[in-house]
Amino acid sequence: MKKEVEKTKEEHVTPWSVEGAIDYERLIQQFGTQKLSPEIKKELSENILVRRGFYYSHRNFDKAFREQKEGKSFFLYTGRAPSGPMHIGHLFSFMITKFLQDKYDVNVYIQIPDEEKFFVKQDLSLKDVDHWVDDNMREIIALGFDPDKTFIFTNREYVRHMYTKACEIAKKINLSKAKAVFGFDNQTNIGLIFYPAMQMVPTFFEKGMCVIPAGIDQDPYWRIQRDLAESIGGRKASQLHSKFFPPLQGVDGKMSTRGNSDGTLFLSDTADIVKKKINKFAFSGGQATLEEHRKKGGNTSIDVSFQWLSIFFEQDDKKLEKMKKEYESGKMTSGELKGVLIEKLNSFLKHHQEEKEKAKSKIQTFMHTGKLAKEMWNKNF
Amino acid sequence: MKKEVEKTKEEHVTPWSVEGAIDYERLIQQFGTQKLSPEIKKELSENILVRRGFYYSHRNFDKAFREQKEGKSFFLYTGRAPSGPMHIGHLFSFMITKFLQDKYDVNVYIQIPDEEKFFVKQDLSLKDVDHWVDDNMREIIALGFDPDKTFIFTNREYVRHMYTKACEIAKKINLSKAKAVFGFDNQTNIGLIFYPAMQMVPTFFEKGMCVIPAGIDQDPYWRIQRDLAESIGGRKASQLHSKFFPPLQGVDGKMSTRGNSDGTLFLSDTADIVKKKINKFAFSGGQATLEEHRKKGGNTSIDVSFQWLSIFFEQDDKKLEKMKKEYESGKMTSGELKGVLIEKLNSFLKHHQEEKEKAKSKIQTFMHTGKLAKEMWNKNF
Repeated sequence: MKKEVEKTKEEHVTPWSVEGAIDYERLIQQFGTQKLSPEIKKELSENILVRRGFYYSHRNFDKAFREQKEGKSFFLYTGRAPSGPMHIGHLFSFMITKFLQDKYDVNVYIQIPDEEKFFVKQDLSLKDVDHWVDDNMREIIALGFDPDKTFIFTNREYVRHMYTKACEIAKKINLSKAKAVFGFDNQTNIGLIFYPAMQMVPTFFEKGMCVIPAGIDQDPYWRIQRDLAESIGGRKASQLHSKFFPPLQGVDGKMSTRGNSDGTLFLSDTADIVKKKINKFAFSGGQATLEEHRKKGGNTSIDVSFQWLSIFFEQDDKKLEKMKKEYESGKMTSGELKGVLIEKLNSFLKHHQEEKEKAKSKIQTFMHTGKLAKEMWNKNF
Repeated sequence: MKKEVEKTKEEHVTPWSVEGAIDYERLIQQFGTQKLSPEIKKELSENILVRRGFYYSHRNFDKAFREQKEGKSFFLYTGRAPSGPMHIGHLFSFMITKFLQDKYDVNVYIQIPDEEKFFVKQDLSLKDVDHWVDDNMREIIALGFDPDKTFIFTNREYVRHMYTKACEIAKKINLSKAKAVFGFDNQTNIGLIFYPAMQMVPTFFEKGMCVIPAGIDQDPYWRIQRDLAESIGGRKASQLHSKFFPPLQGVDGKMSTRGNSDGTLFLSDTADIVKKKINKFAFSGGQATLEEHRKKGGNTSIDVSFQWLSIFFEQDDKKLEKMKKEYESGKMTSGELKGVLIEKLNSFLKHHQEEKEKAKSKIQTFMHTGKLAKEMWNKNF
């Protein structure tokens, strides 16, 4: 009897954990989503994250942008649960959201669930969470959302406007379903068990279709939303699914702020730290010696620096192609490749950190005084 | 082997259902509460519901009123989940609350959970609930609470001020505990599973001790509250427990608006309906024929009319004692006893219905503009 002796760490994906080697094609099958079609890829071709295949799957996005062309506006919804500093991998869903807002001139709703991580992490206090709410909001605002078409809200503040809809949603989800989809067990607290209802409320903020850009690991929430939406007079949400941004140590898994943070590049890292982290920790697809590298070349498919450049940081397709050839042929060394990434990252972060600083004065606009924010404080759901 | 052949319908008490013959002494043991002590009975002796033994059990109420005497005020908390018209049995917890407010000059918080029954009853809509919110509030206000020391709030409106505390509470209750105490199963929706946290929030509205007058079937909520209160910087709530007000058909069980409402006397019933219901449905402890009754006398312990008079409606102890003797000796007939009850009930309801009518103009005071209400809209928990 033949034995599988080389089976490595098993893939494990839930909304709260991504571990092991990820087979992205299999996730599409597992979750029952669709690969981005040629039509959608063409529609969004000016976006680098789509062009480079980082956003690779969807539900009903074709319907959303077709309706848009017929004058029936969709709206965007994304979010961030604060419990610590944001890393580079957190930005991409906000970047594509900002791109879609600019392209289609639509409203954006950004939920800051300032209770979710409190429920998930035993030792995290609400005070800890609150400390990060303001910081994380500024990271998001730094990307340049339209202040009159973007509403940023914390659940604990906006709950009065959301709770009725959350109740309607919650009544449609029984424990059996919640356990199956979210992996809840007898140790799970009743706050986290209710929480998915709060996360689904914003999908009903407008009559048009809600489009949610997010990691494919977040899909379970939206499958439940799709199951119940019409029964409470709403519409099934559309999603754009991304792959996971790889940690420095290797292309498997998802960048995380948990555990060892050596693999994590924070948005607040200085140029020096960035240089050190990339040089020290970025997993290289190069060979053990320079001589061997010149002869055999590097492997771009497992080289984290190349992957990061490929996903976003080298925006010029031709330059990327050239680097790929030169690295794979051994002409370009791992050190040189890392040098390119370090420069790109630091240029990006310098601008981002300046914008984050300016964002301090903009929080009130997005939360309370902007055009959309004002409307939202006069609405109930 | 001896068999118990005469075992009748089993007693079954959870916060959502009271069925069968109730052994109140056993409930004290089962729930681990204390019988009202001679000290407490003396302290509250001017209250008929205590004197007649309808309020019969407690947790820590002795501590609450001793602190009160030392200048450290307790506060009262009660509530009503609207899903239909209120019946006579619903009033007693509000009556004793009003009595305690008058006696100790303390604040009263009345929660109107306008989501609880929506979660419990499959076919009930939020619109249905909302219809009864206003009606039920007026039944409560009719009892004469102090408008500057009483805050009445609906969960869906006041949630912004409660949700943070609800999150702190929810994190302390895992599914295993919630299932054990509330009987939740895989069919229970995630709204109802979270709901106990919302019901516990008001026990932390003030720094003093919270006193909750309620049916003993509500004790499980408060046992959990006691387990977690100190871990979130609050105090264990005190309770005053009542027996169940018996339905017309018999002294077992609890008056309900569910199923056959023949046993239920609504607060909106007219004098004619009251007369008909009592004469037709009130279970009699009298004998089958007048002749037999004169000879053997009636059984007051199973006679619903006598029980109602005894619990509250015959306020004169001597008159009640006289009636007991005359009924048990056969001098007083079942019809005469019912006649006394009908008169008492109609006199009570006439006054109550007039006050309910006047209450229309008072709702805003209790909810928003009274002294305590105003304070509460400026507080967060």
